[in-house]
Amino acid sequence: MANEFCVGVDIGGTSVKMGLFRTDGRLIDKWEIPTRREEGGKHILEDVAVSLKEQLERAEVTKEDLMGVGIGVPGPVQPDGFVEVCVNLGWLDVYPAKILSELLGGGVNCFVGNDANVAALGEMWQGGGKGHSNVVCVTLGTGVGGGIVVDGRVITGSHGLGGELGHIHIREGETDTCNCGGHGCLEQVASATGIVKEAKRVLAANPQDSSMRAFGESLSAKDVCDCAKAGDQLAVETMNTCMRYLGWGLAIVTHMSDPEVFVIGGGVSKAGTWLCELVQKYY
Amino acid sequence: MANEFCVGVDIGGTSVKMGLFRTDGRLIDKWEIPTRREEGGKHILEDVAVSLKEQLERAEVTKEDLMGVGIGVPGPVQPDGFVEVCVNLGWLDVYPAKILSELLGGGVNCFVGNDANVAALGEMWQGGGKGHSNVVCVTLGTGVGGGIVVDGRVITGSHGLGGELGHIHIREGETDTCNCGGHGCLEQVASATGIVKEAKRVLAANPQDSSMRAFGESLSAKDVCDCAKAGDQLAVETMNTCMRYLGWGLAIVTHMSDPEVFVIGGGVSKAGTWLCELVQKYY
Repeated sequence: MANEFCVGVDIGGTSVKMGLFRTDGRLIDKWEIPTRREEGGKHILEDVAVSLKEQLERAEVTKEDLMGVGIGVPGPVQPDGFVEVCVNLGWLDVYPAKILSELLGGGVNCFVGNDANVAALGEMWQGGGKGHSNVVCVTLGTGVGGGIVVDGRVITGSHGLGGELGHIHIREGETDTCNCGGHGCLEQVASATGIVKEAKRVLAANPQDSSMRAFGESLSAKDVCDCAKAGDQLAVETMNTCMRYLGWGLAIVTHMSDPEVFVIGGGVSKAGTWLCELVQKYY
Repeated sequence: MANEFCVGVDIGGTSVKMGLFRTDGRLIDKWEIPTRREEGGKHILEDVAVSLKEQLERAEVTKEDLMGVGIGVPGPVQPDGFVEVCVNLGWLDVYPAKILSELLGGGVNCFVGNDANVAALGEMWQGGGKGHSNVVCVTLGTGVGGGIVVDGRVITGSHGLGGELGHIHIREGETDTCNCGGHGCLEQVASATGIVKEAKRVLAANPQDSSMRAFGESLSAKDVCDCAKAGDQLAVETMNTCMRYLGWGLAIVTHMSDPEVFVIGGGVSKAGTWLCELVQKYY
C-alpha cells in the first residue's frame, strides 16, 4: 500500500478544502473546514493537521501509504516554500509545508505552492489542460489568480510572483486601490468582486432601467452574468468591459508564454461557454 | 581541438553579424555581411555559408573543431526549428538550421532560435544576467524584442511566440497599425522607430520651440534622447511617454515570470543609465 494515496489541501480565506486521492488521481473523499484567520492565522495549520489525521484514520490510510501532502496557499510562495506575507490568511513569515509536516508527527512529505500555480498543474494533469504541457490557468473568484505552466513546469518566479496575472496593470486611470496596493490591476475588473463593482458604476452612471437594480446592494457577479445573458443592456455593457480587459490580459500572456491552452476556473467561470465566447471575442 | 570552437550567426534585416568563439565564450573574430532580402530571402543562408567557410578556413578551424553553429532569426521560430513567416527577411516556410547544415556540407550541428530569445541566453551566460538563471532581456532597436529565461531555459512557447514582448498590447486608442497587424503594441511606442514617431506627434501637437525641430525629417531616437537629456521640454515629454509604457510592460512581465534581473539592450539602450532610471521610475 506504500505511496498509494496523496492529499490535497487548498487553503482559502473562508474555508480549507481537502481531498484524499489515489496517486492515479482518483478522488476517494473530500471535505472542508473553516479557516480560522484570527491571531495571525496561527491555528489554520493546526486545524488542518487535526482534521487530516481524523480522516486518514477513518479511511484506514497510514502515513506509510501516503506519497505526500500538497498545500495550496492564496498568495506568493517563494521557491524554498517560504510565505513572507499572505494577506488573506493573516500569515507573516511562515513555512507551511515544514510546519504541517511537524504537526503530522514527521515522516510525511509536504509540499507547498501558490494555489493558482498548483491549480494549473492539476488542470494539466487531470483537467482542462490534459494532454498539454504548456497551459495557463486563470481563476476568476474573489480575486483573479493565475498559473503558467511551460514544458510541464510551473513558473514560480524568483520571488514567488510568477503567474500573478491578477495584478498585471491593465486599466489606465483607475483610482480605486487594489488589495496589492496598485491601481488598475486585472483583478480589479475581471474578478467576481470587480464585476460587481463595475456593474454598480455603470448603474450609477446611467439613469435607465436595468434588471440588475432589483438586487440592490446584494448584487453578485452571477446576477450580473445572468442579467447579461438575458439581454439586459447595462449588464451586457458591464460584462463587455470586464471581459474585454480579461481578453486583453490573456493576449498579453500569449506574447509571454504562448500556451497551447487556457483553462478558466473559479466561481465566475460557471457562466460557461457564454463567458468563454465573450473573452475570445476580445482576445 | 575537437569541439573547441563555436559560431554565432545573428541574421538581421540589414546585415548578418557573425562571430567565432571559443566554447568558453571568448571571442576570436567577428564580421558581418549584408542581408540580401530579395527573392524571398533565398540567398541569405547561401551567403552565410560561403562567408562562414572562408572565415573558418582563414582561422584554420575545421568542422571537427566546431561544437556547433547557433543562428538567431528576427521572428518567431517554432520548437522544431521551423520558421513559418519572417517578415524582416522575406522568409516563408524555412528550416534555417537544417538548410545551413546542408550548405556547410553536413557534419556541423546547427541550431536556430528567435534572436531575442538566444540573446537572453547569451546575456545570462556572459552578459548582464551573468550569475542568474531567471533573466528577461529586452532589445530596443528598430523593433522591441524580448527573451524570457526561467530556471536557465528560454520560454519559446508552443508557437514560437514566447517572450514576444514587443507585441503585448499596451496603448489603448492607438490608430496606427503595427508590423504585426495589431494596434497599440509596446513596439509601436518603445522602439527607436516608436520614439521618433512619438516625438513627431508631440512636435506636431505643440507649437512651442524645441531643439528637436532642427533635425527635421531625419530626427532619430538618439537625437530625441540627447535633446531630452539636455532638458528640451518636448523631448522630455516624449521620452516620459515612451518609457512609461516600457516600464509598464516590464512590470507586467514581473507578474508573469518574476525575473531576478532585466537586461535592456539594442540601439536605444546606448542612452545608458539615464534611460534605465527613467524606466525604473515608471516600473
